[in-house]
Amino acid sequence: MTDPVSREFFAPPTRRQLLTMIGKVGGAGALYQAMTVLGHAADSQFSAPPRLTGAKPGASVVVLGAGLAGMVAAYELTKAGYTVQVLEFQDRTGGRNWSVRGGDTITELGSIQTVQFAPGNYLNPGPWRIPYHHRTVLHYCKELGVELEHFAQINHNAFVHRKDAYGGKPQRYREISTDFKGHVAELLSKSLNAGALDTAVTAEDKARLFDAMKEWGVLDKNRAYTKSIKVGEQRGWDRAPGGGVNGAPIPGEVGTLSDTLSTKVWQQIGFYAENVMQTTMFQPKGGMDRIGKGFAAKIGHLVRLNTRVSKIAQDDNGVTVSWTDSKTGVSGQTRADWLVCTIPATVLGQLDVQVSDAKKAAIRALPYSNSVKIGLEMKRRFWETDYAIYGGHSFTDQDISLISYPTGNWFGDGPAVVLGAYPYGLIGSYRLAGLTPEKRIAAALDQGSVFHPAEYKAEFLSGASVAWNRIPWILGCCATWTETSRAAHYQNLVSLDGRVVLAGEHCSYYGCWQEGALLSSLDAISRLHQRASAA
Amino acid sequence: MTDPVSREFFAPPTRRQLLTMIGKVGGAGALYQAMTVLGHAADSQFSAPPRLTGAKPGASVVVLGAGLAGMVAAYELTKAGYTVQVLEFQDRTGGRNWSVRGGDTITELGSIQTVQFAPGNYLNPGPWRIPYHHRTVLHYCKELGVELEHFAQINHNAFVHRKDAYGGKPQRYREISTDFKGHVAELLSKSLNAGALDTAVTAEDKARLFDAMKEWGVLDKNRAYTKSIKVGEQRGWDRAPGGGVNGAPIPGEVGTLSDTLSTKVWQQIGFYAENVMQTTMFQPKGGMDRIGKGFAAKIGHLVRLNTRVSKIAQDDNGVTVSWTDSKTGVSGQTRADWLVCTIPATVLGQLDVQVSDAKKAAIRALPYSNSVKIGLEMKRRFWETDYAIYGGHSFTDQDISLISYPTGNWFGDGPAVVLGAYPYGLIGSYRLAGLTPEKRIAAALDQGSVFHPAEYKAEFLSGASVAWNRIPWILGCCATWTETSRAAHYQNLVSLDGRVVLAGEHCSYYGCWQEGALLSSLDAISRLHQRASAA
Repeated sequence: MTDPVSREFFAPPTRRQLLTMIGKVGGAGALYQAMTVLGHAADSQFSAPPRLTGAKPGASVVVLGAGLAGMVAAYELTKAGYTVQVLEFQDRTGGRNWSVRGGDTITELGSIQTVQFAPGNYLNPGPWRIPYHHRTVLHYCKELGVELEHFAQINHNAFVHRKDAYGGKPQRYREISTDFKGHVAELLSKSLNAGALDTAVTAEDKARLFDAMKEWGVLDKNRAYTKSIKVGEQRGWDRAPGGGVNGAPIPGEVGTLSDTLSTKVWQQIGFYAENVMQTTMFQPKGGMDRIGKGFAAKIGHLVRLNTRVSKIAQDDNGVTVSWTDSKTGVSGQTRADWLVCTIPATVLGQLDVQVSDAKKAAIRALPYSNSVKIGLEMKRRFWETDYAIYGGHSFTDQDISLISYPTGNWFGDGPAVVLGAYPYGLIGSYRLAGLTPEKRIAAALDQGSVFHPAEYKAEFLSGASVAWNRIPWILGCCATWTETSRAAHYQNLVSLDGRVVLAGEHCSYYGCWQEGALLSSLDAISRLHQRASAA
Repeated sequence: MTDPVSREFFAPPTRRQLLTMIGKVGGAGALYQAMTVLGHAADSQFSAPPRLTGAKPGASVVVLGAGLAGMVAAYELTKAGYTVQVLEFQDRTGGRNWSVRGGDTITELGSIQTVQFAPGNYLNPGPWRIPYHHRTVLHYCKELGVELEHFAQINHNAFVHRKDAYGGKPQRYREISTDFKGHVAELLSKSLNAGALDTAVTAEDKARLFDAMKEWGVLDKNRAYTKSIKVGEQRGWDRAPGGGVNGAPIPGEVGTLSDTLSTKVWQQIGFYAENVMQTTMFQPKGGMDRIGKGFAAKIGHLVRLNTRVSKIAQDDNGVTVSWTDSKTGVSGQTRADWLVCTIPATVLGQLDVQVSDAKKAAIRALPYSNSVKIGLEMKRRFWETDYAIYGGHSFTDQDISLISYPTGNWFGDGPAVVLGAYPYGLIGSYRLAGLTPEKRIAAALDQGSVFHPAEYKAEFLSGASVAWNRIPWILGCCATWTETSRAAHYQNLVSLDGRVVLAGEHCSYYGCWQEGALLSSLDAISRLHQRASAA
C-alpha cells in the first residue's frame, strides 16, 4: 500500500529516529533533554558538538594554548566560520596530552632528560586512560581517526602492599578482596543471627540478607568464612586445578579478620568502583598524544608555537594579546574580536589580564595538585611471564603509590615500559618531585622492588620522569577545587567576561580529565558564539 | 677481576636463573616444586610441556579425536619421536574449539543451519575466553603464533535484569553493586554501633571496621547510605559532571535495601570474583578456532577426518581401533602400540571399548551439562553508541541468562555479533535447545529486548545457534563431576589401562575449560610415555 519512503513517515518512529527529529527541530539543548528523558544521556553531558552556525563574516577569535581545550575550540570555531589563531607557549601542540618516546626531551625547572626507550615504547606523563562515559573524548577520537584500544584497570592478580600488613609482603588483590567480603559477610550474618538488626530490617529482608551473605561471602554451612574449595574458586589456590591423576586443587588458608583489615583493601575496591575508573576503559593505540596529533592535523596550521603571552587586553571592539617569541626574542601583538584562554590558572595568574576582579580572584584562588609519573623500561615482561599479571596496577603505601603494567603488546618479547610511580598523595608527589631525575628512578626501583624483588632492578634498562610542579608551562598537575572554592569562585571563573572566556579542565567539574577540558571548551565557545552572534 | 662469563657463575643467581638451573638438573617435577616454593606456580599446574625424550624407535600411538586434547597429544608425542595417527569423527579438526562464520553450516540432530554473518564476524559456540592463569593455553598460543587480545568481562555499565526486581526494569551494574555495598556497610556499622559484635571482634578491629565500612560503603556522616555526590562518583549520575556554567553533577536516588536485595546482585559480584572469570581475560583475535588451526598447521597431516570409531581393542602388543569412513562408507582398522582416547564420555560410553570394568563404569557415570549459544548479528553497535556498553555481559533471569557484547572492533561501523544467549541453568538450556533454530532466535530476540527495547529487533540481521545436546559428536556441552562421582570414578577414568589412556576436559579438575583438556592430555601422555619407555 505504501512505498518504503512514505512508510518511514507513517510507522511509529524508533527511539533513534525520534532523537534525530528532536535534534533537527529543537537543537542540541532539546536533544539533550529528550535523551535524558529517554534514559540515554545521564552518563554524559555530551550528545553532539554544538551547532555553531552563522558566524559574522570576518569575525575572529584568538585562542591561547594548544592543548585539547584550545584545539577543540579552534577546530569547532573554524568549522563555524570564524578566523582563528592559536598561540602556544611550547614548541609542540597537545599540552598535557603528551607521550614521550625514545629521543624526546623532558624539560623541567632544573633538569633536562633525554628519553632512552626502545622504538614503539612510550610514557604518557599526563592523561593515560579514557572512561567509557567520556563521550566527548570518544566522539573526537572517532572523528579524528584515533584508534582506541582497551586499557586494563581491575586486575585481580596484581598486588596490594602496605608496610604494616602481612609483614610488608604484597598480597594478590584476589586473595584479600575475597577475604574482605568473607569477613564482612560473616560478621553481618552474626549480627543478623543475634537479632541485632531486627528493628532495622524486615523479616523478609533478613532472610534474603542471610542468603546474600552466604553466597556473596562464600561462607560455610555455619555461616563462617573458612578455607574451602569454594573459597579457592575465588581466592586462588595453593595448588591450582589440573588434569589427570594429580588434578585436584588445594585451597590456601584464608586471611584473618585482623590481617585483612590491615591491608585496607576496601580502598582498592573503592578505587575500582569509581565511575571514572570503571571498566571498560580505553587508551589510544600508540600513545595518548594521538588525540592531540589528530587535532593538530586539522588545525595545526593555525597554531603559532614558542609564543609566550605576557598580556591580555580587551576593549569594546576586540582583544589584544601581547607576546614574545621564545626562540627569536621578537615581541608582537595579536588582535582579534574574541578570545578563548586555556592557559592554566597557575600561569595565567602571573600574567597581566584585563578581566573583572572577580575572575582575577577566581584564577588566583585555584590551587593545582601535583603528580609525578616515572616510566621504567624493562628488558622483558617478567610481570607477565613470571607473575601472570597482564596490565592493571599493583598498589603500595610507599611514595610511588602504584606501579602500572602496560596494556598492549601482551606476550611480546621486547622491552616494555612499566609506570613505576604515580603518587596520589601530595607528600609522596613532592618528595619524588624534589629528587633529581636520576634519584627518582632509583627511588622508583627501590620501592617497586617490593612487588618483583628478583626482577625489578635486574631487568631495568632506562627510565624517564615528569614532575608536574617543575614543568614550566603549568607548574602543577591539574586544578583541585574544594567545595568552598567552587561555591566562591567557579561561576566567576567560567563566566564570559566582555570578549574573553576561559576554558580547560580547570573550568569544569571533570577536573584533571580530558573530558573536562573538551566539555568546558565546547560550553565556552557556545556562549562566546551566542554573544558574538548577538553583538 | 672476572670476565662476563665467569661472573655469571659467581654472582648469586637471580630467581629466573635458579629456576632454569633446577629445571635442567631436576626436570619438570623439580622445577614445579621449586616454583611453588618461590611463590610462582600456585596459580597454575603448568610450567612447561613435559620433556618426553627417548621414545623407542618405531613406537606408535593412535589418538582418537582431533580436539585440543587430541591435537596437543599428537603434537608433543610426535616431537618425542612417536609415530602418531589421529582419527577424527568430524570433517574438521578442533572439536569444541570452534568458530562459525558466514557460509559455515551447523549440523544438529534434526536441523542444519547456514550461517549468514558478514565477513569478519563470528560466533564461538564453545570456549570463548581464556583466563590469565590458564598458562597451558597461553603457552601454546604463543608457541603456535595465535594472537591474543583482551576479552571484556566486568562491565560496570552493563545491565542486570530480574523479572521481580525494579518492576522488571534492568539496572546498571554500577548502580546496584554500589547500593549493595552501601547497605551492607550501613547494616554492619549499625551492628557494630549497637555492640552486637563486641565479643567477636577486638576493639582495634572494631575501630578499623567502622572506618572500612564508611569508606567502602560510601556512608554519610551518620554512617547511613544516602544520596550524595560521593555516592554518585561510584553509582553514576542523573546529570553527569560537565564543563562550564552547567558543569555541576546531579546524583540520583539510591536504591532501597529491599529493592537492592531483589536484584540478587551479589550473584554478579560473585561471578566476577571467580578465579576463572577474573580480569585480565583473553580471546584469540579473529575467533577461538585460531588455536585449533594453529595445532592443525603442525599436525593436521596426521589426522584422518570423517572417521567414525566403533571399537577399541587392546592386547599385549598393541591396540586396534575399528572405524568406518562416514563419507565413503569404507570400514578399516588402525593398529598402534598405544592409544590416547579423547572421545567425550557421552559418545565413548556407546562404543565397544576394551578397558577395565571400573573405567567403563567411570565413563558411564559421567553426566554432561548442556548449553546453548545464540549469535545475533546486528546492523550496528547500538549498545556502544546508544548505551555506552563496550564488551561485557548483561544478565537476566530469563532462559537466555545473559547477552554478551563483542570485544574487539569497538567503535566500528559495520554489523556486529552479540551473543544473544548462554544459559547457565539446565532448564533454560533445554528449553532453548528444544526449539527449532528459527524459534531460538525469536526467543533470544524477545528476551534480549528487555535490555535494548527500541533497537534489539529493529537492528537484527541474522542469527545462528548451537544447542550442544543436539550436536551429534558430543551430545552435550562438557563434563559435570559432582563431589560424589569424583570420589567414586575420577581416578578410574584417568588411570592408564594397559595401553589405553583417556584425556580431555572430562579427565581434569578444569572441566569445561580448554586448560583442562590440555593439562589432562599432557598428564596422560607423560604417563603413557613413562610406561612405553619402561616396556
